[in-house]
Amino acid sequence: METWDAIRSRRDVRQFSERPIADAHLERVLDAGRRAPSAGNLQPWDFVVVRDRDQLQALAGVWQGAGHVAGAQAVIALVSSVPGDEMQRSILAFDLGQATMVMALAAADLGIASAHSAVEDQAKAQGVLAFPDGKFLAFMLSVGYPAGRPLAVIDRPDRRPYADVVHQGRW
Amino acid sequence: METWDAIRSRRDVRQFSERPIADAHLERVLDAGRRAPSAGNLQPWDFVVVRDRDQLQALAGVWQGAGHVAGAQAVIALVSSVPGDEMQRSILAFDLGQATMVMALAAADLGIASAHSAVEDQAKAQGVLAFPDGKFLAFMLSVGYPAGRPLAVIDRPDRRPYADVVHQGRW
Repeated sequence: METWDAIRSRRDVRQFSERPIADAHLERVLDAGRRAPSAGNLQPWDFVVVRDRDQLQALAGVWQGAGHVAGAQAVIALVSSVPGDEMQRSILAFDLGQATMVMALAAADLGIASAHSAVEDQAKAQGVLAFPDGKFLAFMLSVGYPAGRPLAVIDRPDRRPYADVVHQGRW
Repeated sequence: METWDAIRSRRDVRQFSERPIADAHLERVLDAGRRAPSAGNLQPWDFVVVRDRDQLQALAGVWQGAGHVAGAQAVIALVSSVPGDEMQRSILAFDLGQATMVMALAAADLGIASAHSAVEDQAKAQGVLAFPDGKFLAFMLSVGYPAGRPLAVIDRPDRRPYADVVHQGRW
């Protein structure tokens, strides 16, 4: 798909169909994340990809807004080292935002929708994913084909108008 | 360009050519950012687009790593409200990472390279951009055509190997 079409068709979806994602397509999404830029090229992430339904249902319990994980075809769990201070936490969040976005766009390019989720219960997350101490589950990205209407270019997104967001030269 | 090609050709560039960016192309990049997802769809950003050389040179002085801004064809200044606490700061950073990434990919799709920069000297930034009190310049994204080799698909990016980054099912 053309990049501009993928950008305009990406949308958050929290209800997924039972259509499985081809292995090669899931690998492409993960590889897009692997290629994401990061501060100092530190690549401060590991991606745990989960497709097992029991694991998905358990992960849906790590935050009140994580329910969509239970019905996803897969979830990509973004695991990072616990930041040393608030500055590091903010830099990490920016980098994880970049990695999440490029994975969501690589997915949209294949007609695959996504939704991301925060994480609250780290003990439960560690129980499911078995990441080492000193790491934490920063975010999850659910992926799957939409249960409802397929992805398609959105001409009028639910966003502030362009002229409100963009300032020329100065505020 | 195909999305997967744009993803694989995006790279950080800090030396830009003097070739100007067409208005319509810069608008597309900005519109991609406008469409980015954000927590609660709050869209916690304004984009100030700067093309004036004097302003660009002044903005290059807001952080030690911002030198590339001076020679960019344009910079997109991401301005946000000062976060109320560290949790809000982290959420904001994640959202700004998403917006930055989709703009960098929309640019790469057009052969336009980019580099982002942190900001330290907020007083200087406010002097150049005239944003209101209570706002701050969170990040800048320089854009322009590369002075050196054009963007092209990178087969072997300078990244950790796929098998090192991606874990199947559990860590």
